[in-house]
Amino acid sequence: MTNRLSPPIILINFKTYAESTGQKALELSKQAEKAQRETHVTIGVAPQFADITTIARAVTIPVFSQHIDPIKPGNCTGHVLAESVRQAGATGTLINHSERQLKLSEIDETIKLARNNDLTTCVCANNPSISRAVATLEPDILAIEPPELIGTGIPVSKAKPEVITDTLKLVRKVNPNVVVLCGAGITQPEDVAAALKLGTQGVLVASGIVKAKDPYTIIRQFAEATKT
Amino acid sequence: MTNRLSPPIILINFKTYAESTGQKALELSKQAEKAQRETHVTIGVAPQFADITTIARAVTIPVFSQHIDPIKPGNCTGHVLAESVRQAGATGTLINHSERQLKLSEIDETIKLARNNDLTTCVCANNPSISRAVATLEPDILAIEPPELIGTGIPVSKAKPEVITDTLKLVRKVNPNVVVLCGAGITQPEDVAAALKLGTQGVLVASGIVKAKDPYTIIRQFAEATKT
Amino acid sequence: MTNRLSPPIILINFKTYAESTGQKALELSKQAEKAQRETHVTIGVAPQFADITTIARAVTIPVFSQHIDPIKPGNCTGHVLAESVRQAGATGTLINHSERQLKLSEIDETIKLARNNDLTTCVCANNPSISRAVATLEPDILAIEPPELIGTGIPVSKAKPEVITDTLKLVRKVNPNVVVLCGAGITQPEDVAAALKLGTQGVLVASGIVKAKDPYTIIRQFAEATKT
Amino acid sequence: MTNRLSPPIILINFKTYAESTGQKALELSKQAEKAQRETHVTIGVAPQFADITTIARAVTIPVFSQHIDPIKPGNCTGHVLAESVRQAGATGTLINHSERQLKLSEIDETIKLARNNDLTTCVCANNPSISRAVATLEPDILAIEPPELIGTGIPVSKAKPEVITDTLKLVRKVNPNVVVLCGAGITQPEDVAAALKLGTQGVLVASGIVKAKDPYTIIRQFAEATKT
Repeated sequence: MTNRLSPPIILINFKTYAESTGQKALELSKQAEKAQRETHVTIGVAPQFADITTIARAVTIPVFSQHIDPIKPGNCTGHVLAESVRQAGATGTLINHSERQLKLSEIDETIKLARNNDLTTCVCANNPSISRAVATLEPDILAIEPPELIGTGIPVSKAKPEVITDTLKLVRKVNPNVVVLCGAGITQPEDVAAALKLGTQGVLVASGIVKAKDPYTIIRQFAEATKT
Repeated sequence: MTNRLSPPIILINFKTYAESTGQKALELSKQAEKAQRETHVTIGVAPQFADITTIARAVTIPVFSQHIDPIKPGNCTGHVLAESVRQAGATGTLINHSERQLKLSEIDETIKLARNNDLTTCVCANNPSISRAVATLEPDILAIEPPELIGTGIPVSKAKPEVITDTLKLVRKVNPNVVVLCGAGITQPEDVAAALKLGTQGVLVASGIVKAKDPYTIIRQFAEATKT
Repeated sequence: MTNRLSPPIILINFKTYAESTGQKALELSKQAEKAQRETHVTIGVAPQFADITTIARAVTIPVFSQHIDPIKPGNCTGHVLAESVRQAGATGTLINHSERQLKLSEIDETIKLARNNDLTTCVCANNPSISRAVATLEPDILAIEPPELIGTGIPVSKAKPEVITDTLKLVRKVNPNVVVLCGAGITQPEDVAAALKLGTQGVLVASGIVKAKDPYTIIRQFAEATKT
Repeated sequence: MTNRLSPPIILINFKTYAESTGQKALELSKQAEKAQRETHVTIGVAPQFADITTIARAVTIPVFSQHIDPIKPGNCTGHVLAESVRQAGATGTLINHSERQLKLSEIDETIKLARNNDLTTCVCANNPSISRAVATLEPDILAIEPPELIGTGIPVSKAKPEVITDTLKLVRKVNPNVVVLCGAGITQPEDVAAALKLGTQGVLVASGIVKAKDPYTIIRQFAEATKT
């Protein structure tokens, strides 16, 4: 696994926000790259499929797809092929985000397809028991995001710190190697610091950065917060 | 509807074939553009999402997305936003391909979203009664593809000409304006000519071109066949 | 089509309410039967799958399944076979309820399977354009239910009468024979009368009856309201 | 968990076969009950939803639903409520059969809902890594069924014994308590004996019994084979 990212990691999910589509996605990615250059913290971006090529050519930070389908090259009109996002320049992919959940067998197959295509896998999970199940499937990264907190501005590290600590305990028993990120509701640098203090190795963040007035400053503050 | 294409139309679905992914998708699109320039027949390409940007910048022929999701900008990780493929350069989209079927209400919503984003809609249908139902939803283009013939090399115009003529009769009663394409199993120029003779206004074709040894020659022959 | 019901029709969707599960579903069905006997208005019930047998044996009013899958006998564990609900005593089925929507090709196939199994089809639709598309598929009954009103207690006949009249105009052009029911938000006898005055031939109702303190009285009032 | 079944277990999945629908499902269940009475081996049946009530009233052996949905009582037309199948007499449920797969979070939620409704859970899995993931979710029973063998008559115990032994090793590390069944392709008594020798505690079987000329004899032979 040569493409494992060095924690701490700040992974920015662009979702399908207007503020992170097309030209704006490119600009945001450049700001993320600038923050990485200045702080030396690993910062990745997960833009929409159609924006991967442009961004991957313009920046040197990790670019993730937001999803891939459990398919091989062939008759799969309208689906997302691992080979396609890889050739477009993605070096990783989100899998099973709470907004794009997969069947269990699809998660298993997708992780294997991503690995065969040299894509770092970041699999999302909603609660401690699901996180443990995901950890046994051996993704590179596990992102725990209670769906009821997504987009609320209430960080899981504050609202439900026990979700994080419980998850870490369960996960470590079945898989000591997976990198664990914390997601949902992260908007303040102190949320990032809190997530790391609880034992995670980074954050998966979306609106907290994408919808910020000055995304660059927030990214930079988040990166600095990982060092405290 | 300024973005309506002039029939006859040859629309090439790249699916997720290895032969039409990444750099190869770009090359194939250039061959399609060359054939259009030489024959003046409308030729469109429908590459994978991640290839839209590169192709749309390189060629002047119509570029279709293979699918869009019935969503608006927002929290839809891993989904395909009309705005995103439009900004990437697509001018149209396939909807409800037999390999990526949608719920009825999603087809209705997706057609409206595509129209709002200035995307030409090509909705696929499997049989005469489904084609009639689709026609009432007023897409720009209707592509009739019996799924049992897709990828077989047996053209519907030969195996089931009555599917085409029945479809046209039913469709015209509820919608005299929709452009009707014929798909599934088209590999020979004579299949294209036969499809037009039956009353359709073009073809939706995939492996017949994408997996051909010399795609350019086939595209060119198909284009010429529309003139016979 | 010997199993066509005589309008006006009151079709009670039991959904998965606790108040209409198991023994309570049976009691509610008996109340519906009593109201039918007294008013001679067609009253049907749509209980959960597991309750069909018991209810169909106990009452003589029409019993609908809430859904069937587009499958034939075979390897379809966990799916709902038309033959199964028919043998259990159902004489009809809802299809494409807004809480259980189907792909367009599945609606088409399911209507045909239902017909082959002598089940009256009641296909649900959300708006005028979807209703017209459904009408072309020739179900026995079309129920128009704007999803934003379901369970609100605000009847579509009051909040959006134009949805009903628009729908009827569009539907009649493509299918003059389909029986049209009006759903969503119906809780008062006057809502039933209003729905019929707009030109529909009955109502599809759920919580307005199931969650009423005295369902029998409401059913009876609804039946009387169809006569005004 | 008072409703845990005593291994060895023979669990018969009726699927949606014509041979196990309606009256025939009832007869088959009576034959299974007879075989249980004579052999004292645990034999369960998993009929279609609409047949649960009739069968559960007629026999005393365990009756499983083939699926339940991750829902609570409410607005879920056409879905399968745990409370409903429980009140109909089911004492257990299959979950995530390869023909009715669920999203990972749905499996987690469904197991919890089943437990709250006193239903024994039998979760199906396709390969060793998926089986391990399922085992961490703590179902009562885990059934391992390679989908490529389902309905082939080739038993996994013969074609892929390593799938079974690998699965057992992985599963036992994360969950020493779950009862493991072996499925797919079991048609002979020797297949049952082989499955148990590999360390499983019973079989999940479908066509091997349902489509047999004399199902009773096969069930009885399978039950005897568990004792060898």
